[in-house]
Amino acid sequence: MRMYDLIMKKRNGGTLTEEEIGYMVSEYTADRIPDYQMSAMMMAIYFQGMSEAETVALTMAMAHSGDMMDLHEITGVKVDKHSTGGVGDKTSIALTPMVAACGVKIAKMSGRGLGHTGGTIDKLESFEGFSTGITAEHFQRQVNEIGISIMGQTLDIAPADKKLYALRDVTATVDNMSLIASSIMSKKLASGADAIVLDVKTGSGAFMKEEADAFALAREMVTIGNKAGRKTIAVVSDMDQPLGCAVGNALEVQEAIATLKGEGPADFTELCMTLGTYMLIAGGRAKEEQEARTMLAKVIADGSAVSKLEQFVQAQGGNPAAVLDPSLLPKAAIVEDIQSPDSGYVEKIDCEEIGICSLILGGGRETKDSEIDLAVGLILHKKVGDRVEAGQALATIHANDRQKLMTAKERFLKAYHITTEEVTKKPLIKGLVTE
Amino acid sequence: MRMYDLIMKKRNGGTLTEEEIGYMVSEYTADRIPDYQMSAMMMAIYFQGMSEAETVALTMAMAHSGDMMDLHEITGVKVDKHSTGGVGDKTSIALTPMVAACGVKIAKMSGRGLGHTGGTIDKLESFEGFSTGITAEHFQRQVNEIGISIMGQTLDIAPADKKLYALRDVTATVDNMSLIASSIMSKKLASGADAIVLDVKTGSGAFMKEEADAFALAREMVTIGNKAGRKTIAVVSDMDQPLGCAVGNALEVQEAIATLKGEGPADFTELCMTLGTYMLIAGGRAKEEQEARTMLAKVIADGSAVSKLEQFVQAQGGNPAAVLDPSLLPKAAIVEDIQSPDSGYVEKIDCEEIGICSLILGGGRETKDSEIDLAVGLILHKKVGDRVEAGQALATIHANDRQKLMTAKERFLKAYHITTEEVTKKPLIKGLVTE
Repeated sequence: MRMYDLIMKKRNGGTLTEEEIGYMVSEYTADRIPDYQMSAMMMAIYFQGMSEAETVALTMAMAHSGDMMDLHEITGVKVDKHSTGGVGDKTSIALTPMVAACGVKIAKMSGRGLGHTGGTIDKLESFEGFSTGITAEHFQRQVNEIGISIMGQTLDIAPADKKLYALRDVTATVDNMSLIASSIMSKKLASGADAIVLDVKTGSGAFMKEEADAFALAREMVTIGNKAGRKTIAVVSDMDQPLGCAVGNALEVQEAIATLKGEGPADFTELCMTLGTYMLIAGGRAKEEQEARTMLAKVIADGSAVSKLEQFVQAQGGNPAAVLDPSLLPKAAIVEDIQSPDSGYVEKIDCEEIGICSLILGGGRETKDSEIDLAVGLILHKKVGDRVEAGQALATIHANDRQKLMTAKERFLKAYHITTEEVTKKPLIKGLVTE
Repeated sequence: MRMYDLIMKKRNGGTLTEEEIGYMVSEYTADRIPDYQMSAMMMAIYFQGMSEAETVALTMAMAHSGDMMDLHEITGVKVDKHSTGGVGDKTSIALTPMVAACGVKIAKMSGRGLGHTGGTIDKLESFEGFSTGITAEHFQRQVNEIGISIMGQTLDIAPADKKLYALRDVTATVDNMSLIASSIMSKKLASGADAIVLDVKTGSGAFMKEEADAFALAREMVTIGNKAGRKTIAVVSDMDQPLGCAVGNALEVQEAIATLKGEGPADFTELCMTLGTYMLIAGGRAKEEQEARTMLAKVIADGSAVSKLEQFVQAQGGNPAAVLDPSLLPKAAIVEDIQSPDSGYVEKIDCEEIGICSLILGGGRETKDSEIDLAVGLILHKKVGDRVEAGQALATIHANDRQKLMTAKERFLKAYHITTEEVTKKPLIKGLVTE
C-alpha cells in the first residue's frame, strides 16, 4: 500500500477502506508517512469529505493508536461527558458530582488546554492542594469508593490524533466535520467509558457558529460512538453568549458550587439538569427524563450533590472547606464594576470577546507554557434580553493588574450591544441527538 | 504574512495576490515554509484552481527563484521550443538544425529526465564524443558562429519549480492545468529565449489524454508567455500512437537524420514542418506560413539542414561522420522482427505500452541513476490505419539481451490492436494556439 495512491484516491472522490485508513494512521503515527503527504490528504478530505464508514474507521484507528484506558476494575456503568467548549463553560465541575450523587460512575480524564480560561484541571486546582496527577490504581479505587474521579492525561491517549491535529492546525484543515468528530471521539473511545454524553455548543463563542453545523457534528459523533458500541447522546446548546455568569477559573468554581446548592444561574443550571438527565439515562440510573430530573433535583435539594464535590476534592488532596466557604478560593486584588453607558436591553454579547477579556486579565493560556492566574475573571450581571439602566453594573471585573483591567474593560464595553427595543431571550437547549 | 492565512484564503476560494505568491515561492525556496504547508496549498489549488493573474504570478516568481539565463550576447531573435513529451519524440534533434539552417538562432537548454527513452541530451550522446557540458561562453559563441547550440542545465534554473515539482510528485497534486503550465513556463522564461514554440501532446501516450485538456494547457502557457513579453505559440499534436517510427535513443537520432534529408516518416516530417513554420515566424524569418514552409523545404532539399546538424555535432565534440553514416551510431546485438499474428488494419496502438517496451529493453531511466542503453529500441513498420497481413512485420526490435527482448515482445503484441474493418487515419496536427 502506498500513501500516494491513497491521496490520489481520496482526491478523486473515492472512498478509503478500513484497511487503508488503518495503514495511513499507523504509518503516520510511526513517522513512516511524512507530514507533507498527510497534509495533502487532509486537504483532499476537506474538499471530498468522508463517508460515515470512513469516519468511523478513522476514529477507531486513532483511538487504538496508543493506550486504551481499561476501566473494567470499576463496577457499574461508567459515563463520560464532553463539551466542544466555550466561554464560561464550568459544566464538568457542577455536573459530575451531581450525577455521581445519583449513582452514576464518573471516571473522567481531563486536560488543561489552551483557551480563554484554563481547562477543568486548572479550575479544580482552585482548591488548594487538589491534584489530578494520581495513579491509575488510585483513580479506579476512588471511583469504586466514592463514585467520582478526574485524572490528568498521563497515558498516551490517541497519539495519532495528537499528531494529526497539530498538523491540521497549521495547514488550514481543522474545520471539517468528519475530522473534528473523529478527533474528539477517538480520545473519548480510548478513555474507556461505557457511555458518552456530548455537549455540542453553537453560536458566536463556539467553534460551530451555525446551529445546523452543530447538529451535523453532533450526528457524526453520535454515529461514531454508537457504531463503536458506546451509548452516545448529544445535546446541542447555546454559546452565543457566555454560559452562566462567571468567566475565570476560581470564579467559575464558585458558580459551580452555587449551582450544586441550587443557587446557580438559570441557564447554567438548566444545562446541568439536561446533560445530567441524559447521563443518568445513559448510565442506566433512570428510565426517562422526568425520573432523571427528579433525581437530580433531589440531590441538589438534600445537599448530597455538594457533599459529593467535597468528598471528591478531599479524595484528590484538595481543601474541601473551600466548597462551603468560597472565601478560601483564590481571590483577586482589584474588584471593580463595569457600568453600562446606556439604558436599554442587552441585544447581543460578543461571546468570544468576553473570553478574550479573561485571557487579557491572565485567566487563560496563550501558549502551552503560560502561567494561569486562577483568581481573575468576570462576573456578568446582565445577559441577552436583560433590562439595564445607564450607570448600572453590566459586570464585575476581578483583576490583579490595573493596566490589564483597563484593557479588558475597554474591550468588554465593545462586546456588549445595548438596544432600546425589547429583546427576546433564546432557549439555551437547541436540541437532542440520539442517533 | 503567514503561509497559514494564504492556505486558508485559497482553500476558501480566494485569489492570491502577486505579493502573496511571491512571498510563498521565495520563502518556500529558502526552506522557511515547510513542505507540509506547501502540499496543503497545492491540494487547495488543485480543488480551487488559479486565475490567469495568479498563474502568471506563480510562473514569474518561480522563473526568478534562481539564475536567469542571459542571452543578450547572442545577436538576433532566439527561439526556444518545448514539447510536453511522448513516445518517439525526437523532434528537437531534427527541428533545431532545420530551423537554424533558415537563420533562426537556437540557444537551447535541455535535460536528461526520466522516461521511456532518454532526453534530448541522452539521444545526442549517440554521436560519439558529443557533450552538452559546455560553458556559457562556449554556448553563446557557438550560437553566434553557427546558429545553434544545446547545453545541459548547469545553471540553477527555477529551483522553486524543481522543489515544488518534487513535492507535487509525491502528494498527488501534479495534474492541475495552472500548476503544469507554470512549471513548464517558469523554466522556459528563465532560459532566456525571446520567443517560445510549444508542442502540446494529446492522446494515450501523452500526459494530457483529452484533446480539450491539451488545448486548455496550451492556452494557459501561451497566455503566460505572452504576458511575460515572450512571443509564444503552441501547436497541439497527436500522441495517441508513437511519433514517427523509431522509439529508442540512437534509433531516433537515425530517424531525425533521415528526416533532415527528406526521408523521414510522414507524420514526424509534418510535425517538424509545422513547428518549424512557427519558429521561423516567431523568430521573424518568415511573415506567413507558406513562406516558412518553402524555406524549410528548401534547406531539406539543398542539404543545408543536414549540414547544420553536422556542424552542430562537431562544434560540441561529437563525430559528425555519423550524420552521413548512421552505422557509426550505437548498434544493438540482436535485431529481430515482430510478426503480426492477424491480418487486418491497425486500429489502435497503446502508446504508453510501446514506451514501456523501450524502457524494458534498457532505453530509458527508471530512477535518476539508471544507465541508458542508447542502442536498443523499436522501429514500427505499421501505424494506425495501416493494412497488415498475418506474418508480416509489425516492428523490428533492437535489443542487447534476449530475456528483455522476450518480455518486450510479449508486451508489444498486447499493445497492437488489429481489426478487420478499415480504419481512418487521424490528423497529426490538432490545432494552433496563438493567444
